[in-house]
Amino acid sequence: MPITLPFKQLDVFTTVPYHGNPVAVINCLDISENDIDEKQMQNIARWTNLSETTFIFKPSNPENDYKLRIFSPVNELPFAGHPTLGSCKAFLQFTNNTTSKTVRQECGLGIVNLTVNEDGTISYKAASTSFDKIDPKVIKEYTECLGVKPDDEPLLLHVGPEWVVFHVSDSDKCYNANPDFAKLAEISKRNGHIGIILGGPRTLDPHIEYEMRALAPVINVSEDPVCGSGSTALIAYLQNKYKFDKTTKLKITQGGRVGRVGRIHSMIEINEAKQPSFHSGGNVISLINGEITV
Amino acid sequence: MPITLPFKQLDVFTTVPYHGNPVAVINCLDISENDIDEKQMQNIARWTNLSETTFIFKPSNPENDYKLRIFSPVNELPFAGHPTLGSCKAFLQFTNNTTSKTVRQECGLGIVNLTVNEDGTISYKAASTSFDKIDPKVIKEYTECLGVKPDDEPLLLHVGPEWVVFHVSDSDKCYNANPDFAKLAEISKRNGHIGIILGGPRTLDPHIEYEMRALAPVINVSEDPVCGSGSTALIAYLQNKYKFDKTTKLKITQGGRVGRVGRIHSMIEINEAKQPSFHSGGNVISLINGEITV
Repeated sequence: MPITLPFKQLDVFTTVPYHGNPVAVINCLDISENDIDEKQMQNIARWTNLSETTFIFKPSNPENDYKLRIFSPVNELPFAGHPTLGSCKAFLQFTNNTTSKTVRQECGLGIVNLTVNEDGTISYKAASTSFDKIDPKVIKEYTECLGVKPDDEPLLLHVGPEWVVFHVSDSDKCYNANPDFAKLAEISKRNGHIGIILGGPRTLDPHIEYEMRALAPVINVSEDPVCGSGSTALIAYLQNKYKFDKTTKLKITQGGRVGRVGRIHSMIEINEAKQPSFHSGGNVISLINGEITV
Repeated sequence: MPITLPFKQLDVFTTVPYHGNPVAVINCLDISENDIDEKQMQNIARWTNLSETTFIFKPSNPENDYKLRIFSPVNELPFAGHPTLGSCKAFLQFTNNTTSKTVRQECGLGIVNLTVNEDGTISYKAASTSFDKIDPKVIKEYTECLGVKPDDEPLLLHVGPEWVVFHVSDSDKCYNANPDFAKLAEISKRNGHIGIILGGPRTLDPHIEYEMRALAPVINVSEDPVCGSGSTALIAYLQNKYKFDKTTKLKITQGGRVGRVGRIHSMIEINEAKQPSFHSGGNVISLINGEITV
């Protein structure tokens, strides 16, 4: 028996319509998870053809706001950055909630804490991150394939996906790089990496404005227009490099090379124990509003 | 100044929701083409990430029903099969038209005549088709790359896109073929072909039920789930092969290898002068209904 549910398609990490990263969100707050099976959700996500389609359910624990299930066209994901921001905005709109300043999202990774900021942006605190060194031979291969040299040692960042962060000396070098995507896919696949986050500063001191690119041909996204997990990887890399000792906001520009106008509002938060946590956020615009028959 | 327009996303060539070929359709009947520029339409089509997004405008000539502009994520197209069927259904629904049996669509290719059939399917008459022979060396390369031998000479069909039709002796050979997509992309690109239509009969006599696959890695669609222009190419090939001398309906199954349940209702119409014309059609289901802000 087909059911009709509220639907939105939103644009994340931009203020310019159709120049951010899209996500489709289906409001399942009025049904139970038993009313729609995993296979149906997967089929819908394959059909929308977006990088992610999400389903908002009632939370398991009433202390949280909602439970989110996130599907790529081929599988379910425990977490994803821009879909979380888009789904939070959709949740607030679906429930006519204009007052909440904090939102708790249940998802495969656990609880994600979101903040609705004064300027209208929404941000999430990333789960714990860690990093590893990379075999110099692999770095050499990536360097040849990117055609641009890192100005500091690249690292493998574990932020959910396994991103290799390549820091170059300035934003133009980042923007102008012309990677060999076929070769990049081969190297990434062989090493179990999702791809490369290429980042370069716009301003040399303080180091707070960056151009970033997310190159992931191994998952058939040659270049992701605006990437939440990539921004977490980049700022975690920067914290390791610069050892910020107080809370620092960073602005990241992304997507120019694929015709987008992506703006990520990132923050490295330093607590009283001088431990960092990483936040990524941005604007979200709702562009398609209606109903979906499932 | 943003405007909000009626929006639908429909599933074409299937009766099973989310198992056909999707198209996004925007109703611009109440605005003029001057109110939305080509770049905006292109940006929206890039953002939906579907193979096609269409825009329905008032017709230039009142004898026609509407004018359609069709965009892929990267460019505007003069015509496309499944988007035409989806847009025709959307037009009828947007205008609450439940009585028309024929619809005239203006598009880049000219006028396309559509029929709303008794069984609820919609079909269109393809523009003129022609074919050419293919260099035997190229046929040999394609044969090696597909891993299955044609049982008759493959031909290059000009149906808008340039499809190479490969006819194999039975539907199982078609369904089970495992092409080398990287190699196929290289051969197609080098020869200026969009890809291969692989077809094999389910029934040997009469030759009216087919399994079909549309392999087009050169346009980043390794395998198109259900393909209108491909079905035109296949039946035009079959008319050349079998010389049907009376109007013949053919059923084409497609998409099984990519998890879809595609059904194309094709017809070779033979007129009094014994000239054939080619029709492709199928069911269309409207799955997302709402509004889009442009």
